[in-house]
Amino acid sequence: MIWSKGERNLVKQINSFFGIEEDDCSILPLGEGKILLTTDTASKSSDFPKGTHSWFMGWYSLAINISDIAGMGGKPLGALLAMTVPDLRKEEFGEILQGIYDCSSAYSIKVWGGDTSYGEELSITGTCVGLASKPLKRRGLKPGDLLAVTGYLGKGGAGYFAMTGDLGWGEKELLRVEPRVEEGLALAKSGSATACMDNSDGLALSLHQLGDVNGVGFKIHEDRLPLYPELLELDIDPVEVALYFGGDFELITGLKREEGGKDLSFTKIIGEVTEKEDGIKMVKRDGSMMDLEERGYGQSWRFADER
Amino acid sequence: MIWSKGERNLVKQINSFFGIEEDDCSILPLGEGKILLTTDTASKSSDFPKGTHSWFMGWYSLAINISDIAGMGGKPLGALLAMTVPDLRKEEFGEILQGIYDCSSAYSIKVWGGDTSYGEELSITGTCVGLASKPLKRRGLKPGDLLAVTGYLGKGGAGYFAMTGDLGWGEKELLRVEPRVEEGLALAKSGSATACMDNSDGLALSLHQLGDVNGVGFKIHEDRLPLYPELLELDIDPVEVALYFGGDFELITGLKREEGGKDLSFTKIIGEVTEKEDGIKMVKRDGSMMDLEERGYGQSWRFADER
Repeated sequence: MIWSKGERNLVKQINSFFGIEEDDCSILPLGEGKILLTTDTASKSSDFPKGTHSWFMGWYSLAINISDIAGMGGKPLGALLAMTVPDLRKEEFGEILQGIYDCSSAYSIKVWGGDTSYGEELSITGTCVGLASKPLKRRGLKPGDLLAVTGYLGKGGAGYFAMTGDLGWGEKELLRVEPRVEEGLALAKSGSATACMDNSDGLALSLHQLGDVNGVGFKIHEDRLPLYPELLELDIDPVEVALYFGGDFELITGLKREEGGKDLSFTKIIGEVTEKEDGIKMVKRDGSMMDLEERGYGQSWRFADER
Repeated sequence: MIWSKGERNLVKQINSFFGIEEDDCSILPLGEGKILLTTDTASKSSDFPKGTHSWFMGWYSLAINISDIAGMGGKPLGALLAMTVPDLRKEEFGEILQGIYDCSSAYSIKVWGGDTSYGEELSITGTCVGLASKPLKRRGLKPGDLLAVTGYLGKGGAGYFAMTGDLGWGEKELLRVEPRVEEGLALAKSGSATACMDNSDGLALSLHQLGDVNGVGFKIHEDRLPLYPELLELDIDPVEVALYFGGDFELITGLKREEGGKDLSFTKIIGEVTEKEDGIKMVKRDGSMMDLEERGYGQSWRFADER
């Protein structure tokens, strides 16, 4: 959300056009700044590999919006879903609705309404409203902060490569996204978290975004990355996937060093915040340093006249 | 919004699935029920005739959302835009943004953020937030109320047929939608309005929707319909377009009979609310009565297995 994800060269143009600060949600100028609003789209060609069951499309489309609320330490309240619907069988549509419903139940939120219209390609745009007594923004990191993540890295990528490689699994890993709502709420309540976002565009790109907003650098450690176990069984470079593929929907958070993430056992510390001049680096297993490139999900899109 | 527009057989399935009452906006369970939220999608194949200039796509996509806020007597505050973007030149994208920006300026609202993703077809989903001290709902009509509309009927249809007939005009009529925000606010303030909605799916279908929600019928008069003047110059049946085509984004409102729409000179009384058993009828110019069919924008869509 906030045009902070998706196609980066579109995002940059839009943010400068409208003067928008990048965050996972907008904070509405209502209710003492505690109401969060976000919107995110999933479309068949971008998000759902061939053969995806319709139920997963419904679940995913709502879950990615809930994840943006989680990324700001909010509690999701309810959502709207706008669906662009092509040729579709009645049963498929019912399965999409069931996926949306099951996700809304799992996170105790209401589906308030939405919109449908005809289009050539299925796409589902969710809008989610949440509440946060103290929203966790992307801005707030200081050199010296610890850097932590929730869950695994590379789970979404493992799912994608398993699905597209016809390995008979992967749909759940890629599409049954489990937004880190409880974790976001705990981070916001802890007072330890200095900034937070979800990492859906990939760890490396998320760090570049946090680096831009905060004017800082990062040093992470390859041997501390919580790689998704099944990722190691695939014929791909697991670290490449964990860093650059995206689709994980975990939280990345800065933590005050003196508190060291106490009572936040669901986080894993993978590095620290450094000075901007130090860049965005990873200490490899062999002790050498490598730069993390500014690439990840949505980086490949180009305007038709700039290709 | 609220799955009350768009493809009616999808809408009905969704509303019963989620237990949603049809209205132009959701009323958030926050801020004492004064915060309105709506979402609406425009897509290239559904909403933009061939040759549409990109600026109009931007304006339209935001304006249709503002219209839903107007339809509930609210004041729009700000919006998010989620864009699914296919092959596009940089200039086209800039024009879309300019259209969005110009619409936001014209209605003094903020664009807070949004999302972009790649897709095969351009679609833009807006989300708009508004405030209403006393939201005008669809429910509230009583037999005996007067029925009034704002502006012209058939303006959107005239624009569509002019554009698709290559008459050299029509883009403004169809796509430079002017949401009736001031009018909606005045209706809400007046205390005369008993219910309200925008008529974007067409007058006849909107009356059927209001009839369903309120358990009432309607009697309108052909000779009172404020037909868009240029519509009469086209080689089509103007009343058919005004009743069934959709795309007008005017307000339809019930008014207390005793007050007769005083101080609401921007409305035109076209008929009255009747008992449900009386049906939904139009008195033709020759004095005969005809039933208004339940059809309008989005009625032609069918599930692939039900065609």
